[in-house]
Amino acid sequence: MATLKDVAKETGLTVSTVSRVLNNRGYISEETRKNVYAAMERLNYHPNELARSLSKKSTYTIGVIVPHIRHPYFAELISNLENEAYHRKYKILLFNSQEKDEREKEYLDMCTRNRVTGIIICSGNIQMKEFKELNVPLITIERYLENGTAMVECDNYQGGKLAARHLIEKGCRHLIHFSGVRETAMPADQRAAGFEDVCKQKQVSHDAIGTSVNEYNALEYHDYIEKVLKEHPETDGIFASSDLIAAQLIQVCAKKGIKIPEQMKIVGFDDVNVASLTTPRITTIHQPIKEMARTAVELLIKASEGEVTPSRTVLPVVLVERETT
Amino acid sequence: MATLKDVAKETGLTVSTVSRVLNNRGYISEETRKNVYAAMERLNYHPNELARSLSKKSTYTIGVIVPHIRHPYFAELISNLENEAYHRKYKILLFNSQEKDEREKEYLDMCTRNRVTGIIICSGNIQMKEFKELNVPLITIERYLENGTAMVECDNYQGGKLAARHLIEKGCRHLIHFSGVRETAMPADQRAAGFEDVCKQKQVSHDAIGTSVNEYNALEYHDYIEKVLKEHPETDGIFASSDLIAAQLIQVCAKKGIKIPEQMKIVGFDDVNVASLTTPRITTIHQPIKEMARTAVELLIKASEGEVTPSRTVLPVVLVERETT
Repeated sequence: MATLKDVAKETGLTVSTVSRVLNNRGYISEETRKNVYAAMERLNYHPNELARSLSKKSTYTIGVIVPHIRHPYFAELISNLENEAYHRKYKILLFNSQEKDEREKEYLDMCTRNRVTGIIICSGNIQMKEFKELNVPLITIERYLENGTAMVECDNYQGGKLAARHLIEKGCRHLIHFSGVRETAMPADQRAAGFEDVCKQKQVSHDAIGTSVNEYNALEYHDYIEKVLKEHPETDGIFASSDLIAAQLIQVCAKKGIKIPEQMKIVGFDDVNVASLTTPRITTIHQPIKEMARTAVELLIKASEGEVTPSRTVLPVVLVERETT
Repeated sequence: MATLKDVAKETGLTVSTVSRVLNNRGYISEETRKNVYAAMERLNYHPNELARSLSKKSTYTIGVIVPHIRHPYFAELISNLENEAYHRKYKILLFNSQEKDEREKEYLDMCTRNRVTGIIICSGNIQMKEFKELNVPLITIERYLENGTAMVECDNYQGGKLAARHLIEKGCRHLIHFSGVRETAMPADQRAAGFEDVCKQKQVSHDAIGTSVNEYNALEYHDYIEKVLKEHPETDGIFASSDLIAAQLIQVCAKKGIKIPEQMKIVGFDDVNVASLTTPRITTIHQPIKEMARTAVELLIKASEGEVTPSRTVLPVVLVERETT
């Protein structure tokens, strides 16, 4: 592989002049600049960004830790994070924790050892103490973290309200909310609060039923849904805490001969691709994933530059009406 | 942040002794080793992997370039690549090309400048010349590349045969294959060949209809499917080149009142989560994505260590029967 010295030799310039061209430092004539870049191209010389990172103290790398890459919500989120990073000349180091404590710890350690500019984390198990002395900005998306730099979330409470109002307006009187994972406190829990508040106000019967970590990790809810529907045969409207659960709900209803939307109305959450791929397509609460990703990347970069950033940013949600209501 | 010098001072050892402990070099007593690690923990010292990478000439990083993270096939593939890399102490730098030439070039350049150990690429537009002097192993998954190190693919031809045989056995006599993107040659094209060969042999009428890059990039096929069904009203069996197309096909059939599987039978390809989330669930050709990911990572590491590796590895597919046939 060609080195800086080879480029200097090829152009007849000194190493320090070539280095000045690369680092855009001091006065360099346009002709010299052109010569250097032409020689780099001829020699197939690539500046070593590792070496540059060491001296510049920034790697322009963002560590992203998610629980499940294959979950459509996280796939969509990662896609947007990568795009926002790209436009700011940053790279993404991607880590899939599978919600396992030991993997999260190892990933944090990898991030530190590789001197990432900051970390965006959407995985829930990490203990606060692990973060205390990380020395890099730590942004969470839809997760609580006491020692984090900033938290980005959607308006989960409003999402719950929108779902309840919509189902009630469509005539439902026996509502169920398939809520999130029971063991871990997360912003998504506010969906239940918003949902419940509207149901109480409108005096509509409602139940909130939490899923378990096992179901979440397997992305598999069929048995759980069947059990709940058997125990609540009067149900005519369901708010599912993800489009993934809503899609599986449609399947269980089809199996049991329950017609959607005639006998059962469903509102999902997230508005990721699966919501548009089911038959019928899912009415859902749209999370502004693109804007959440942009906010997270911007906050991370600002914080890494020493700026004071908001500790909590809440972005608005809307209801997208499709065919399940 | 604590440095190697701080650890030396804390332990009363020399910097070179501490360095020998970290690099596992030369004789070090168990007591010294323990002292050093205890001091590292007390001082919250993290070895700088960037600096180590520079001297070791390996970054233990794999660049992964895909066209669309949010496509369920690539989300599944990335998830498996990350897992295989993790178990070998490698990290993933993730890049989303959106099938754009200029982004692929920039990403390759980023990979080179950051001294990745190798690159796994599943994006189709890159010109061969870009790779000629990369000097790192380049593994493609389901893509052709003349100057690549190794190609990993599933048995696409066999997949096409399995789909045709299954549809014909189920009684279909007017078949259509919604094949891949027309502009780019890729291994998936062999699905059409396998499909056609069986149809010819069994003397069943068949048509192969390619999708365009626009539809592929938008992941949106509804209009295209409607048009094709209008032009081929006699169709009673369809082989869709991805589960994503099959899911949208189910939606168009529902809209037009075509009953699945009674009036229309469908076989998808990939067997990613969407195949199990639609109603009815999709009969599909299962790609061994986990094994393909493992093979790609293993080949990359072996090639980076100078081993001779197979230039082409084909992994078997199977048909998974669900509810669309």
